[in-house]
Amino acid sequence: MRIVVPFAAEMPKTRLKPVFTAAERSTLARAMLADVLRAIVEAGYESTILSTADLDLAALELPGEVETSTSVAVDDRPLTEAINVRLPGGEESEADGDDGEETEAVAVVMADLALATPAALEALFAADADVAVAPGRAGGTNALVVRDPAFRCDYHGTSYLDHREIAREIGATLETVDSFRLATDIDEPEDLVEVLVHGRETDRAPSRLHALGFDLAEREGRVVAVRDETADVE
Amino acid sequence: MRIVVPFAAEMPKTRLKPVFTAAERSTLARAMLADVLRAIVEAGYESTILSTADLDLAALELPGEVETSTSVAVDDRPLTEAINVRLPGGEESEADGDDGEETEAVAVVMADLALATPAALEALFAADADVAVAPGRAGGTNALVVRDPAFRCDYHGTSYLDHREIAREIGATLETVDSFRLATDIDEPEDLVEVLVHGRETDRAPSRLHALGFDLAEREGRVVAVRDETADVE
Repeated sequence: MRIVVPFAAEMPKTRLKPVFTAAERSTLARAMLADVLRAIVEAGYESTILSTADLDLAALELPGEVETSTSVAVDDRPLTEAINVRLPGGEESEADGDDGEETEAVAVVMADLALATPAALEALFAADADVAVAPGRAGGTNALVVRDPAFRCDYHGTSYLDHREIAREIGATLETVDSFRLATDIDEPEDLVEVLVHGRETDRAPSRLHALGFDLAEREGRVVAVRDETADVE
Repeated sequence: MRIVVPFAAEMPKTRLKPVFTAAERSTLARAMLADVLRAIVEAGYESTILSTADLDLAALELPGEVETSTSVAVDDRPLTEAINVRLPGGEESEADGDDGEETEAVAVVMADLALATPAALEALFAADADVAVAPGRAGGTNALVVRDPAFRCDYHGTSYLDHREIAREIGATLETVDSFRLATDIDEPEDLVEVLVHGRETDRAPSRLHALGFDLAEREGRVVAVRDETADVE
C-alpha cells in the first residue's frame, strides 16, 4: 500500500491566522507533517508527501528512518484532482508487480492529523473494505484507503458523505473507521488544545506549541489552549 | 457491569441556547438520552439514569426492551460526587454476588453522546484495564469504565488528564479508548452537524433535528447545520 500525505507547502493553516504569524504557522504545519510521517513509518509504511509546491525534505529534519521512507511529489493541481490521478486506476497510479495484474491500494492521510498514532493508522490500513474512511469533524475526510480502481475522491464540501455516495454508486464496500485521533485535524485555534492534551511526548507539534508559549488553561469552565505573550518564543 | 448515565433533567444543554428554545433543548436532550440508552441495551447492558431531578421514565417513550432495561436514580449532588458514591468502592456501590467478594465494574456514559453505537460502546466496555476512558474534546471524559475500587473520578476541568493522574496515583492501569463516536458530545450549536452526518437512521436525535428545521449546508467553505426558520416545526 502506498501512502500519500497532501501538504499545502506555501500557505499552510490559514485558519490559524488569529493566533500565529505566517512563520509560526509554517513551523507548526511542518511539525505536524513530521509527526504524521513518523507515525506512518512506525506503522510500517513509506509515504509520499504530495506537496503543492517545492518542498525541501532535508529541511524537515526528519529522523533518519523517516527521511529514507519519505519522498516528495509536487503537484499544484487542486487537492481532489491531484489525489485522483494517484488512486488505484488513476492515470498516475502504479501497478503492483511486474505483470500489473493487481492494483496497489492507496491511502491518503492528511498532514495535520497531529494526534495520529501508529495504532490508529494501522486500524485504518487494516480495514479490508474497498474503501475505508476515517471521518473528520463537520463531514470531512481525514484519512482514506482506496482499494477499488473505480473509486474517485471528492474533497469538496461534506466529503465524508460524498465518499459514501461515490462508493455506493460504484458498488464498492465502505467502512467507516471510528477514531478520535484520526478525526482530529488541527485547523483552528480551538483545535490546539487537543495537541496539548493528546499529543505524544515524542511528537514535535506539542513541543513547538509549548515553545511558542501555549499551555492549557481553564476559561469560563472550559479548557482551552492559551498563549503567554510574554513567553520567550523561539 | 453497571452502566450509569448522568442526565441534567432540569436545565439540559444550556450551551445550545443560541439556537434552541428551552423546550427544544429539553426535547433534543431527551432524544439523545433515548438514543444512548438504546445503544447500551443493544450492546447487551442495562443502565441507570442518574438524574439531577425527578424524571418520568414513561415520558421518554423508550422502546419496550430499552424501558425494561433502564431505571432512574435521582441525585441532586454535583456530578463528581453523585458518580463517586456509585463507583466500585463507593458508599453506594453494589457488590457483585452474595458474598461481596468482588466489586462490580461501573461504566459512566454521558447522555449527550448522540453518535454512540453498540460497537463503540462494546469496545469501551471490553477494555480490561483498571480504568478505561473515552476522552471528549478539550480534555473531557465522555465515557469511563472503572474496575478498581480505589479510583475516584473528578469531572472538573481537564478531567481526562485528571483521570490519568488519579489512576497513576493509585497504581491502576488506564486505557484510552480511541473513538470519534464517543468523543463527540453534543454541547454547542457547531456540534449539531455531527448528529446530521453520523447519526444512525433509527436514532431519534437526527429526526428531531430535521423536524426542527435543521439541515446540512455549506457556509464559507465549511459544512454546518443550519435552521430553516420557515420550516413547519413541531
